[in-house]
Amino acid sequence: MRIPTLRHWLIAAALATSPLIATTPAHAEAPQVKTQAPGFYRMMVGQFEVTALYDGYLDLDAKLLKNASQRDIQRLLAKRFTTGPAIQTAVNAYLINTGSKLVLIDAGAAKAFGPSLGFIPDNLRAAGYDPAKVDVVLLTHLHGDHVNGLLTADGKAVFPNASVHAAKADADFWLPAEALAKADEASRPFFQMAQSALAPYQAAGRFSTFDDGTELIPGFKALAAPGHTPGHSGFLIESAGQRLLVWGDIIHNAATQFENPEISIEFDIDRKLAVATRQKLLNRVVKDKLMVAGMHLPFPGIGHVRREGKGSFEWIPVEYGPIR
Amino acid sequence: MRIPTLRHWLIAAALATSPLIATTPAHAEAPQVKTQAPGFYRMMVGQFEVTALYDGYLDLDAKLLKNASQRDIQRLLAKRFTTGPAIQTAVNAYLINTGSKLVLIDAGAAKAFGPSLGFIPDNLRAAGYDPAKVDVVLLTHLHGDHVNGLLTADGKAVFPNASVHAAKADADFWLPAEALAKADEASRPFFQMAQSALAPYQAAGRFSTFDDGTELIPGFKALAAPGHTPGHSGFLIESAGQRLLVWGDIIHNAATQFENPEISIEFDIDRKLAVATRQKLLNRVVKDKLMVAGMHLPFPGIGHVRREGKGSFEWIPVEYGPIR
Repeated sequence: MRIPTLRHWLIAAALATSPLIATTPAHAEAPQVKTQAPGFYRMMVGQFEVTALYDGYLDLDAKLLKNASQRDIQRLLAKRFTTGPAIQTAVNAYLINTGSKLVLIDAGAAKAFGPSLGFIPDNLRAAGYDPAKVDVVLLTHLHGDHVNGLLTADGKAVFPNASVHAAKADADFWLPAEALAKADEASRPFFQMAQSALAPYQAAGRFSTFDDGTELIPGFKALAAPGHTPGHSGFLIESAGQRLLVWGDIIHNAATQFENPEISIEFDIDRKLAVATRQKLLNRVVKDKLMVAGMHLPFPGIGHVRREGKGSFEWIPVEYGPIR
Repeated sequence: MRIPTLRHWLIAAALATSPLIATTPAHAEAPQVKTQAPGFYRMMVGQFEVTALYDGYLDLDAKLLKNASQRDIQRLLAKRFTTGPAIQTAVNAYLINTGSKLVLIDAGAAKAFGPSLGFIPDNLRAAGYDPAKVDVVLLTHLHGDHVNGLLTADGKAVFPNASVHAAKADADFWLPAEALAKADEASRPFFQMAQSALAPYQAAGRFSTFDDGTELIPGFKALAAPGHTPGHSGFLIESAGQRLLVWGDIIHNAATQFENPEISIEFDIDRKLAVATRQKLLNRVVKDKLMVAGMHLPFPGIGHVRREGKGSFEWIPVEYGPIR
């Protein structure tokens, strides 16, 4: 019998602790691709084709969330495996092809809030559409992360063939020249962004306002949801018996505001009314089992809401899958 | 003063109830596109690039879920806005580019379960990769919806340059010729699919087995998770201090089995052991705050698990976003 030498033993030990599969590549290594899948998601609502479009994300400072202690807010974030101070917050828009009209709800932030946003035109093209074919743009409200995307970097209309529509209450609040003149330093950029974004559409006679309950085009009804801004609106969409409520900014932070709808955000113009509107709409969508889409819900931001105990809710996102 | 005629009044009434925005298209109507975004999702785990790949979906009959009354199962499904009898169930696989190895975990169902599956090669290409560049295929177990995708429709290797690896306990159960010969009629197709899918890789000397705890390649460790099949395994992946457990079929139906992990599925070889393994792993991933990926979780099937009361859990999916 041959007694193993130390050299044999060392080789055997090395083999025993080395990985099972040889690590020398048999052929060229594939470089890491490191790009995300395109930011669109498609589904049908009756005969309407709905495409969620990802504009990008904002890193929201958790301290902008109000009406609860930062300790409570961090506890709620941790339950969703998110921890502050910066919370990745999606900016979504929704493109609805009714079959005869191409309707975009909100236009994203363009590059005014940094390079992590402004991808709606790219994702709209990735989804098979052309911004020039958009017939109608409906705006949930006139904040910059919803309207800046109406313009190119050099101030031209991104949607040159679209008419643009916002609630009269929001237009009256943000668009008068004297409102900008009277604005304090902190809020002046909000007025400037709203006025700049709409100017070319107003000049072309392509901007008009609507009131609560207006049927904008067949199957699209405005639903006043004031508080976040005076004219903040949802759009209730219905086709062939199926419904979708595009509710704008009813929720800015899914991790905290579904569980505690009293949590508010710094940017709310009327915080108390924003909370009351959120509670009212949450109760309605639960009661009606209404599918909702939200501009700051985790992309694609489409799903249902379930009640979880008194005054508390849970977000149930749609599942990815083919168009069926 | 001119008094309006009835005709005037009828026109005014028609205008008042007609939609705000003219419905005649100003230009050519955009046709509905009706395709879904490509079925991949990308993220980093340390220095490893992880790409979730969507193979498609199965419509799972709710009656295949066991250990609870159908009434309880339908109640849990309804809480997720899903109702039976058919439950859309994703089939996912995971491609990990370590920087030096391209590793695929599971290969999907190919077309053996119908036209709604078999999209892994398409989505792998959409994600920027070439099946011929895959170096290693790790199999969580040898069921057809995980192994059929190893072969093209004409029986050739889809991954001609890859070595293929499965747990010894699964290979010993599914691959012996005598196991097929002894199988009853109902289970024979399972044995046939496993044996057919692996045959070309075995013939080329490209198939080998591993045991629990084996380090397969640096950063990939096999984790026995028996019950669903005798050798059903997870893979614990670690890079630069970040971890991901690809746990195979620990959950087949997210809507019911997180809330009640005792719910089992018809296809479990050892139902009691499958339940015990599920409970053990759920407790472990909660304790360790371990990110998991699952082959039948809603695509992309990556997320965390939170405890919700005694013996009950909640799934928290990752959020879509760019690679950061």
